[in-house]
Amino acid sequence: MPADDGTVFALHPQLAQDTVAIGELKLCRLLLNKDANYPWLVLVPRRPDVTEMIDLDASEQAQLTTEIAAVSHALKDITPCDKLNVAALGNMVAQLHVHVIARRKSDAAWPRPVWGVAPALAYGDNELRTLIGAVRRKLGLEQDQ
Amino acid sequence: MPADDGTVFALHPQLAQDTVAIGELKLCRLLLNKDANYPWLVLVPRRPDVTEMIDLDASEQAQLTTEIAAVSHALKDITPCDKLNVAALGNMVAQLHVHVIARRKSDAAWPRPVWGVAPALAYGDNELRTLIGAVRRKLGLEQDQ
Repeated sequence: MPADDGTVFALHPQLAQDTVAIGELKLCRLLLNKDANYPWLVLVPRRPDVTEMIDLDASEQAQLTTEIAAVSHALKDITPCDKLNVAALGNMVAQLHVHVIARRKSDAAWPRPVWGVAPALAYGDNELRTLIGAVRRKLGLEQDQ
Repeated sequence: MPADDGTVFALHPQLAQDTVAIGELKLCRLLLNKDANYPWLVLVPRRPDVTEMIDLDASEQAQLTTEIAAVSHALKDITPCDKLNVAALGNMVAQLHVHVIARRKSDAAWPRPVWGVAPALAYGDNELRTLIGAVRRKLGLEQDQ
């Protein structure tokens, strides 16, 4: 997807390594973080060289807000959730990415933020497939994406 | 400010204790966190009984996005900043509040998120007044708010 200046969006290798692709929303690539401690989605706007939300133009910021809301509703509907955590940090990986995490009072980090607290827990194959399928259905994403 | 159901917005006591009021934006009360380790602003939508961004209606979410962007630009303009951190967590204080933090690679928590890492550092009176004045000027807030 070439941008106006000819550069191309590419997912940062660290994000690619830590996640499984769920599908493409209008602005963002939607990813699942490979950490079964928390239902943890990540939205990455498909724009090159963007590190801050304010690097997006106003219409893209509005679209990002819409997609954060859609993903938040989907997570709340399909997983037990006491609180959503929504965050754009980017201290380790500068490429703009927004975390949307379903938190439980019984989870591995509660009430702390999740970053750097508990080692990532591997998903079982069935568990991963079931969660991704549920997110795709809620968001109307095609199964073959 | 009564809401439709007659309830009234009130700032959570913990947020009141941890911050200094800067002024009122169209939707949010703007606060400065009393921690001189980081230029750290907090936006609190003046709506009662709201804990998640998706508890706001679509137009309020859009307004919140606009205010986050304005505050982000203001912080970037007036403080040295290697990265912005923008987050709505709410695990400790459920009332919806959005952190906008100017991070430096030399700061007390880098590259970790700021929460729970370094004890809050008191501002000097002049330092506090100068920062709040700069934020108010950037955002066009009246000095007497």
